[in-house]
Amino acid sequence: MKDIAREAGVSASAVSFALNNRAGVSPGTRARIERVAERLGWRPHSAARALSGESAGVLGMVLARPAGSLGVESFFLQLMSGIQRALAPRDHALLFQMVDDLDSECELYRRWWAEGRVDGVVVVDPRTEDPRPALLASLGLPAVVVGGMETGGQAPPTGPRLSNVWADDTAAMVTIVRHLYGLGHRRVAHIGGIGGFAHTERRIEALRAEAARAELADARSVTTDYTDAQGAEAARGLLAQTTPPTALICDNEVMAVAAVSVAAERGLAVPRDISIVSWEDSVLCRTLHPQLTSLSRDTEEFGRHAAEALLAVLTGGPGRRVTVPLPRLIPRESTAPPPGG
Amino acid sequence: MKDIAREAGVSASAVSFALNNRAGVSPGTRARIERVAERLGWRPHSAARALSGESAGVLGMVLARPAGSLGVESFFLQLMSGIQRALAPRDHALLFQMVDDLDSECELYRRWWAEGRVDGVVVVDPRTEDPRPALLASLGLPAVVVGGMETGGQAPPTGPRLSNVWADDTAAMVTIVRHLYGLGHRRVAHIGGIGGFAHTERRIEALRAEAARAELADARSVTTDYTDAQGAEAARGLLAQTTPPTALICDNEVMAVAAVSVAAERGLAVPRDISIVSWEDSVLCRTLHPQLTSLSRDTEEFGRHAAEALLAVLTGGPGRRVTVPLPRLIPRESTAPPPGG
Repeated sequence: MKDIAREAGVSASAVSFALNNRAGVSPGTRARIERVAERLGWRPHSAARALSGESAGVLGMVLARPAGSLGVESFFLQLMSGIQRALAPRDHALLFQMVDDLDSECELYRRWWAEGRVDGVVVVDPRTEDPRPALLASLGLPAVVVGGMETGGQAPPTGPRLSNVWADDTAAMVTIVRHLYGLGHRRVAHIGGIGGFAHTERRIEALRAEAARAELADARSVTTDYTDAQGAEAARGLLAQTTPPTALICDNEVMAVAAVSVAAERGLAVPRDISIVSWEDSVLCRTLHPQLTSLSRDTEEFGRHAAEALLAVLTGGPGRRVTVPLPRLIPRESTAPPPGG
Repeated sequence: MKDIAREAGVSASAVSFALNNRAGVSPGTRARIERVAERLGWRPHSAARALSGESAGVLGMVLARPAGSLGVESFFLQLMSGIQRALAPRDHALLFQMVDDLDSECELYRRWWAEGRVDGVVVVDPRTEDPRPALLASLGLPAVVVGGMETGGQAPPTGPRLSNVWADDTAAMVTIVRHLYGLGHRRVAHIGGIGGFAHTERRIEALRAEAARAELADARSVTTDYTDAQGAEAARGLLAQTTPPTALICDNEVMAVAAVSVAAERGLAVPRDISIVSWEDSVLCRTLHPQLTSLSRDTEEFGRHAAEALLAVLTGGPGRRVTVPLPRLIPRESTAPPPGG
C-alpha cells in the first residue's frame, strides 16, 4: 500500500479508495493507482479484503506429517473437534491442508495470507528448530502455536499477533517416571513420537533428567512416526535386548496398544512381566484387557483454548500464553511392580 | 454481471475489465461501472475470482452433527485423511466447518459458492429426505455425495455436476446376518447410528428384510449418536430384556467396544454368552480381548475416491457413480455359537 502510494505520488488513503472501489478519488488518479498497483504485483482479492477490513471468517491449519499417520490416532480429530466447537458459534470455518514438509507449510502461509484466504492460522507440531514463528511475525499473520516450543525450560515464544497454548510435558513425564519408580522400576524405555518435534524432544529430555536424578539403571527413548506399525517395531527392539526394560512409556494410545500386542507375542504378561503406560487416554485404554494406565488430557479442550486464543488476537488482543491443565495420570491394570521387584 | 452491464449501458466484457482491474476500459466508464456495481451489491472477491476464471483451489466439507460425536470415532478422520491424500498433490485445501443442522449447512453452501470460496463440496451423511442434491443442482455447485441416498434399492442420485461415491450397506448387513445365522443365532440386535441418515436407515431396512427372509425369532435396531455413551446405553437396554438377543451388531467400533464393556458389567462372557460384531475395523478391534469380528472397509480409500470424483467434475467431467468395494467381514474371537446353540 505504502509502496503504491509513493510510486503513484498519492496518499495512502487515495490508494485505499481506488483499490477498494470506493468514491473519493478522481478517475485519472484511480487509473494511475491501478497501473502502479498492477506493475507492483498487487493482487485484487487479498488487497480488497485487507483494505475493506473484511475478515475471511476462516482460520487455517496446515499439517506437515506423513500422510499415513493422520488416520490412526485420535489426537488430531479431537483437536479439530475442539477448534470447531469454538468456531461454530462464530460461524467461522477451518481451512485444512496436508503438505509434505515444513517448506511447503511456510509457502502455504504466505499464499493464504497474500490471497486473504485466512484471518489467522493454528500452528501445530512445533519443532525445536522452527522457522515458523519468525515467518508469521514477518508476515503479520495472526497465529496460535499449539504446543510449546521451548527447550531446556525456555518459555515458548509469543508476539504481538502470536499466541501459544501449551501443555507442560516435562512435568507430565516426571509424573509417569515417579509412578513407575514408586512401583520399583529401574529400567524404563520411552517409545516417543516424531524426532525434532518440540514435545517429543521435551519428553525425551525430561526422561533423561528424571532418570539421572532418580539414578535409574536404564532409561532410553526411541522415536517413531506415531503409527502402530512403528510402535510395534520399537517395542520389539526394546524387548529383544539382553536386559530389556521392565516398563514402557508410549507417546500415544495406538502405540501402547501395539506394545501390548508385542508383549503377548513374546509370551510376556502385562503387567506381571512388563508395565505399559499410554500418553493419551481414550475409550481404547479403558476397554483393553488389561486396562491401560494412561495420561489423561482433554485434547478437545486444548483445541478450544487454541481457537479462543487466536480469535482473541484477531479481535485486537495481545498475543498471550495459555497453559492447559497438567494431564492426570490414571493408574489402571497395565502397571505393577516389575518381576522380582 | 449482466445486470451491471445493462444498468451501466456497457458490454459485459467492459464490466469484466473494469471490475477485474484490467486495462481496456476508459477511466470514466470504469468509474461508472464501479458505481453501478457498488449500488447493486456486487462483492469484489467472488466476482473477481469468477470473472478471472480463477479456481479457489479449495473443496468444502460441512458436518452437521452433534459436536461431541466427532472426536470419538475414526471414520471422519480417515475420510478426511483420504481426501487430503487426493488433494495434496494438486495443492488443494479442504475448507471444513461444523454446523448445528441441515438448514445451516445449506446456507453455508450458498454463501461459500456466492463468495467463490470453494470450487466444490464433499457432502456427507446423506439423509433419506435430503434437500441438498436439489439445492446443489440449483446453485450449480459441483459436489460429491459420500454414501448412498437410496432407500428400497433406489440408486443414489447423480447429476451434471453431482457425483456419488457409495458403499453397498445392504449387502454388507446381509453378510453379517448370514455369518451370525450360520453360527446358530436367531435373536439379533443392531445398535445403529443416527436415525434419518440414509446409511443408518438402509442398514435397519436390510436387517429387517434379511430377518424376515431367514425367519429370525427377533431382530431389532436402535439408533444412537455413535458415541460410546449411547452405545453402552443401547446395549444395556437390549441385554436387560426378558429374552435378550444373543448377538449385537454395532455400527461403529467405539460402540462395539462399549457393548463388550456392558457385557462384562452384566457378567456375560464374549463370545460364550453374547456375540458382538463391529461395523468398522481398526487397531482397537484387533487388539481388544476378545478380538472383535469386524466389517473391514478402507475408509481412507473411500475419501480418496470421493475427492477424485469431485475433482473429475471440476475439470469438466460428467457426474458419475462410484461404488467402493464391498467391505469384508473378518471373523475374529467375538462371534461364536449362542449359548445352547
